[in-house]
Amino acid sequence: MSATEERVTVWCSNDYLGMGSNKHVLNRMHETLDKYGAGAGGTRNISGHNQHAVALENTLAKLHAQEAALVFSSCYVANDATLATLGSKFPNCVILSDSMNHASMIQGIRHSGAKKVVFKHNDVADLESKLASLPSDVPKIIAFESVYSMCGSIGPIEEICDLADKYGAITFLDEVHAVGMYGPNGAGVAEHLDYETYANGGNTKGTIMDRIDIITGTLGKAYGCVGGYIAGSAKMVDTVRSLAPGFIFTTSLPPATMAGAKAAIEYQMSYKGDRRLQQLHTRAVKQSLTAMDIPVMPNPSHIIPVLVGNAEVAKKASDLLLEKHQIYVQAINYPTVPVGQERLRITPTPGHVKEYRDHLCQALESVWTELGIKRTSDWEREGGYIGVGQKDPEIVEPLWTDEQLGLTAFVRDLEAGEGALGALEGVLEREHVRVGQAVAAAA
Amino acid sequence: MSATEERVTVWCSNDYLGMGSNKHVLNRMHETLDKYGAGAGGTRNISGHNQHAVALENTLAKLHAQEAALVFSSCYVANDATLATLGSKFPNCVILSDSMNHASMIQGIRHSGAKKVVFKHNDVADLESKLASLPSDVPKIIAFESVYSMCGSIGPIEEICDLADKYGAITFLDEVHAVGMYGPNGAGVAEHLDYETYANGGNTKGTIMDRIDIITGTLGKAYGCVGGYIAGSAKMVDTVRSLAPGFIFTTSLPPATMAGAKAAIEYQMSYKGDRRLQQLHTRAVKQSLTAMDIPVMPNPSHIIPVLVGNAEVAKKASDLLLEKHQIYVQAINYPTVPVGQERLRITPTPGHVKEYRDHLCQALESVWTELGIKRTSDWEREGGYIGVGQKDPEIVEPLWTDEQLGLTAFVRDLEAGEGALGALEGVLEREHVRVGQAVAAAA
Ligand SMILES: Cc1ncc(COP(=O)(O)O)c(C=O)c1O
Ligand SMILES: Cc1ncc(COP(=O)(O)O)c(C=O)c1O
Repeated sequence: MSATEERVTVWCSNDYLGMGSNKHVLNRMHETLDKYGAGAGGTRNISGHNQHAVALENTLAKLHAQEAALVFSSCYVANDATLATLGSKFPNCVILSDSMNHASMIQGIRHSGAKKVVFKHNDVADLESKLASLPSDVPKIIAFESVYSMCGSIGPIEEICDLADKYGAITFLDEVHAVGMYGPNGAGVAEHLDYETYANGGNTKGTIMDRIDIITGTLGKAYGCVGGYIAGSAKMVDTVRSLAPGFIFTTSLPPATMAGAKAAIEYQMSYKGDRRLQQLHTRAVKQSLTAMDIPVMPNPSHIIPVLVGNAEVAKKASDLLLEKHQIYVQAINYPTVPVGQERLRITPTPGHVKEYRDHLCQALESVWTELGIKRTSDWEREGGYIGVGQKDPEIVEPLWTDEQLGLTAFVRDLEAGEGALGALEGVLEREHVRVGQAVAAAA
Repeated sequence: MSATEERVTVWCSNDYLGMGSNKHVLNRMHETLDKYGAGAGGTRNISGHNQHAVALENTLAKLHAQEAALVFSSCYVANDATLATLGSKFPNCVILSDSMNHASMIQGIRHSGAKKVVFKHNDVADLESKLASLPSDVPKIIAFESVYSMCGSIGPIEEICDLADKYGAITFLDEVHAVGMYGPNGAGVAEHLDYETYANGGNTKGTIMDRIDIITGTLGKAYGCVGGYIAGSAKMVDTVRSLAPGFIFTTSLPPATMAGAKAAIEYQMSYKGDRRLQQLHTRAVKQSLTAMDIPVMPNPSHIIPVLVGNAEVAKKASDLLLEKHQIYVQAINYPTVPVGQERLRITPTPGHVKEYRDHLCQALESVWTELGIKRTSDWEREGGYIGVGQKDPEIVEPLWTDEQLGLTAFVRDLEAGEGALGALEGVLEREHVRVGQAVAAAA
């Protein structure tokens, strides 16, 4: 095959929903580019084209049912700047940080100068013992994530809110890998936990999303663009707006980026088909790999981490997939994951229809055999490791239930259990193409 | 006038050359958007569309005649991440920082944990005394800027290089407000100081730009897009690439942004007309305002700071300009400038032809009268202040000489001194429109 003919299938993009090539988003960007130019031409306070920023921030505040939102160059900058600002503003502040928190939060905590207390990943008992050991009058921030990107685990948001109430802490939740992906409006896992309330426009007071003090998200993953943000109370957002150098002293995002991101958010607020389809594809891949004894690390999210357990072999597996099978999956090694936990991280999108999935699974099977990589049953014989081949695995149900996916209703309508998953997938796939490619009616 | 008819003239954009609406840049962005989508879909190491980043970094390295370059979300992030990384990597490192350095450098120095020594703005004697007071064996970094954005002063780059050689220090030069604007290729002030060598493709070894260890720049001001970068030795760039969390753990800039920025850089490398025209417009505005006794802070650069000296009045002046004269110039107050030094910061572009300039000057005259703001002669009577109305002002010659602007040759050809500035301006203005709007021939 000549170099120009070669087509590689990407299976590790964080453009989870393919919004980066959604026609509504692209059209909005083309229009804005022509009307407002390539860049903002200034910082937010000096000539930085505020109209697009204000509109985007209003949409984000609405999405998260918070009073206000603030957009940054990226969510790295949002996390860093916000934690650094809040952590240094409150005297004697202590920040309690999940052990698997992202580098941007770790840096923000460092930069705050606040005391940091690390609690075990998703371990509410450990968090509580740490909260209990702190004086009741010191300000506390609990910083954690909803979907942890490298293992796909999901934070115990409600329990953490309960502890925050009990011990008077502020909650800081990074929904970077969840926005656009969960909830009836795509606001993330916190919204998803009160699915019915948000789906039906009920009273959202006291919902989990409402109880979170600060939500952060990115415009660069499921929303397909670039940029990051925080959402929370008007007071908190104003504090960050007026104090954080990383917000103040930098060129704003371009108008076209902000307008494109806003279009992506609105699209996902109005149409759930893409994220349902993405979940169906995730389920299908997880089921196939599990049936093939390939070691998927169990989790309730849309991320498919496949354990390799050795840096060199993970790199080789990634190279083989590319060279022999035209599949791009990056190997994830230290420092992104601990040594010994090296993996391939697979992310299905709505575009990964059956033929691509079959190809992926066959390729993985071939690579696993060629390199003699351990199977789930091998890990099981060794007593299991980080969820793989564990004797009594916690049962991990997908966060998106059959009901929420529309599978239950679909099966009932079909009066046929067999093949319903595939049939629903077909419906959503056709819809995905039709809705995503339609020219946006109005700006 | 109805709201929709109202047209405001922006006089404070940092899109100094109007590259944000240059057709070559926009065409490249439209094409890239359609081909590669709205976002990168991943970090630089994982699926972040490396082809555009690599091409852009090669162009930047070439522009600055350095071995390598590295692109970041912004130059705020580039400065912060690079100083933090280098300052913490060298044991006992001391960073010598100009007192007017930008917030991004100040943060980077803080985050490095290195010892910081501040020297007086552009004061080589003070810098030398501070260098001399440090043990010879501690690693030293001198961090400074070429064009200081709020007063338009220019750093003594050559003298600082001499001191760096003498005391064994690394030089870190922020050319954020100079890239695209100075030098025969638009590489900045360091290139401009060896204008002939770079214009004629001579041996660049030992030039001032060659002597600088680390140059940082933005893609969001004269290049009209968004993003930032560093350029330097391959080893230094690799160090930052592999260590800086602010580079590693964030979504890459979108392909269209990188391709657009590359087009802007290449355009400015091949065509000097825009920055020459910008300089002519700057000269014209400075001359008019000076003749009108309006207090321009003297400087050799393209920035026109007009002293007000009071936060409230500066805000009022800005509001009046907008409401009464449809001119947008943001007031610059604390913390961007010290209290008492509040100003209007005016930035001409190639599009600000005579009719706009006349309007601006008349509007300023009217506002100065209406609000009774101090004139140059008022400051003079008080003994002068930060360069304004100073008794024996240092003579401040523009960095772009008549010769480099092409004015000398033009006058000779015309055999007429009178009106040559305006005539050259006319030629460049027509060229600016023609060249900038032509459809790019090849990608
Ligand atoms: C001197 C200086 N350095 C760095 C920056 C940051 O550049 P960017 O806007 O690309 O973040 C700015 C302004 O924004 C600046 O004025
Ligand atoms: C959990 C988490 N938070 C924050 C970020 C940073 O977001 P962005 O890419 O917008 O900088 C990332 C990844 O990039 C992430 O995985």
